[in-house]
Amino acid sequence: MIPPLGYRYAATYAGIRKVSKEDLALIVSDTPASAAAVFTNNRIQAAPVRISRQHLRASRGRVSAILVNAGNANCATRNGDEVALICCRAVAKHLQVPVANVLPASTGVIGVELDPRLVTDALPRMIDDLTESRFPDVSHAIMTTDTIPKEAFAEVPLKGGEVKIAGMTKGSGMIHPNLATTLGFVMMDAAISPIHLRQMLLNATQRSFNRLSVDGDTSTNDMVVLLANGSSGIKPSERERRTLEESLCLVMEDLAEQIARDGEGASKLITIRVVGAETEEAATRIARCIANSPLVKTAIAGSDPNWGRILSAAGNAGVEFDATQVDIYMQGVLVCSGGLAADFSEAELKTRLDEKECLIRFEIRGEGKGETRFWTCDFTEGYIRINASYRT
Amino acid sequence: MIPPLGYRYAATYAGIRKVSKEDLALIVSDTPASAAAVFTNNRIQAAPVRISRQHLRASRGRVSAILVNAGNANCATRNGDEVALICCRAVAKHLQVPVANVLPASTGVIGVELDPRLVTDALPRMIDDLTESRFPDVSHAIMTTDTIPKEAFAEVPLKGGEVKIAGMTKGSGMIHPNLATTLGFVMMDAAISPIHLRQMLLNATQRSFNRLSVDGDTSTNDMVVLLANGSSGIKPSERERRTLEESLCLVMEDLAEQIARDGEGASKLITIRVVGAETEEAATRIARCIANSPLVKTAIAGSDPNWGRILSAAGNAGVEFDATQVDIYMQGVLVCSGGLAADFSEAELKTRLDEKECLIRFEIRGEGKGETRFWTCDFTEGYIRINASYRT
Repeated sequence: MIPPLGYRYAATYAGIRKVSKEDLALIVSDTPASAAAVFTNNRIQAAPVRISRQHLRASRGRVSAILVNAGNANCATRNGDEVALICCRAVAKHLQVPVANVLPASTGVIGVELDPRLVTDALPRMIDDLTESRFPDVSHAIMTTDTIPKEAFAEVPLKGGEVKIAGMTKGSGMIHPNLATTLGFVMMDAAISPIHLRQMLLNATQRSFNRLSVDGDTSTNDMVVLLANGSSGIKPSERERRTLEESLCLVMEDLAEQIARDGEGASKLITIRVVGAETEEAATRIARCIANSPLVKTAIAGSDPNWGRILSAAGNAGVEFDATQVDIYMQGVLVCSGGLAADFSEAELKTRLDEKECLIRFEIRGEGKGETRFWTCDFTEGYIRINASYRT
Repeated sequence: MIPPLGYRYAATYAGIRKVSKEDLALIVSDTPASAAAVFTNNRIQAAPVRISRQHLRASRGRVSAILVNAGNANCATRNGDEVALICCRAVAKHLQVPVANVLPASTGVIGVELDPRLVTDALPRMIDDLTESRFPDVSHAIMTTDTIPKEAFAEVPLKGGEVKIAGMTKGSGMIHPNLATTLGFVMMDAAISPIHLRQMLLNATQRSFNRLSVDGDTSTNDMVVLLANGSSGIKPSERERRTLEESLCLVMEDLAEQIARDGEGASKLITIRVVGAETEEAATRIARCIANSPLVKTAIAGSDPNWGRILSAAGNAGVEFDATQVDIYMQGVLVCSGGLAADFSEAELKTRLDEKECLIRFEIRGEGKGETRFWTCDFTEGYIRINASYRT
């Protein structure tokens, strides 16, 4: 698959992580790209989040490079902003672009000082290494407790030719809706103004990263950045932008689903469909409560068709609904009909719940048009093991 | 310790649980007691919750008996209300009191029909067994995944003599603030009107059961009932009611703390103090976010002084605060000073975090007077094991 035109990538081990694994990466657009980003809603914002916001404002949505490191969040650090700026300035100097055209991004442990020299010392060899084909090196470098890199691609045929989209993300723990959730970078080679790009990103985020929860926690560092550098020479019409947005949604949904599937310690991807709520917002609140319920997530881990927990979790959403009008399906099997136990083979369903994917459908009978899809994962002893020992 | 006067207790195995362990219990007040109750806010309410609400209204806050079973929630059942009523009627007939003076309470699995004959068949022998000393039999009978029964007592000397308070509760999973949370029964022998009793219970709940979270989930069946039967012959003055309320608070805080300590799979009690917030409400929101964070709870399980997770969890509370003004203490050790890593011995603190109790203090510098105390427990592999296999 041919990647979007006009981008180059590099990654290296800069000594930020304790283990010798790539921890620093660079994404470069050969011409300044239009850019849009969504950031964490956490009250505590890491330095790279603050600096990226400032740079996007200062450059009016133009980005030439994203510098990302794993192993250190550069959050709750003494000179975090200055450290992030030193790194951005070094990139800007090498690439001969304005410093505001460089976005920093970090993931890793909070409250440990990041030594900027580790970054600046590694930069020259990354700059030398930049090539169009090193996209996977970057998706590997940004992994923390992820077990696999997460990438998604699309080719969108428009009248003027084909636009290409390539996205990568990292996730694992600390994933939660209504936040930029994790690090995500999506590159396109269409020519789109920053203002249109922003709307596309907001719409696509709403349907993807904001419909995702691993453990209900959110990070101080989350951001998703969308770039469009115009290198394809194609400037989509208004209608074509909608087509492009649809493809962007699919790419970002794919990434979100990959995050849920690879949640810390997860053994199963859980997809929750809620239909028949009064509004999409109400449906999403119900889905989120089901997705965040440790009791539901442990039941799925144990292949237990315990629909009572699903009903009870939905009841905590603060959404009005009539319990006697609720049907619940697991793996397509009706387990709760009108709020009561349905007649199904528990042994058979238990076997089907051993599959790697679990589908929960929560349906409110009636006229409600509000529906949503939401991703999460099961809750296993592995999650506890990972998180009881992650830092030390 | 002498129990509150005028109450009798009994418990038996009625065959509701699969395992042969007491699962049905009766609390009887010899004269109709003033009563107040708080119930779950879950949108899904079990039949006994509905019937108890109705009975309290119909009797204008008078209760002669509480009938409680474990092993079956009587929730999302075909004839749940009727089943609960049949059981209440049987109790009322035996005791020769109005049916509205009997409150039903249930805990256990959702969506399984409860056979009322199991209850009515067991009633005669329970009625025969009723004695003042069988309080512990009831606190044992209501246990589900609890590992120990939970009781707390107080003796309150007033001008007219001593008022006695005895409380019991069950908890374990599905414990969450702002709900009646779990089953709790508190008996007093003072003479207090239902309207005053209600205010006492609301105030005490606010400081106890509403400051408690085990896993963020809430049940369809939670209720806390407070009875005052006047058997001591003491009618407290307005000032004495405040003294009594204070003792009630201590009893209920004690019960809440016991629930947290015995949370499913818990190895440690976590007490969270938040001080310096603008309001008590803001302090509580911050405390709740810390208490509900799986990342914080797993860090404590692993004795990891990972204050970054505490700061990040607090940042998700939707409360405005200046991160550079935050001090965090763990076990009394300053780990985060002004939002930055403090200078402390990690090895030493790790050892202290191996203790059975963990104290987290989150302090916002400045003039804020809002503070709170909140209880939760750590998150271990045991929680997953219990909940991946509870029902089946």
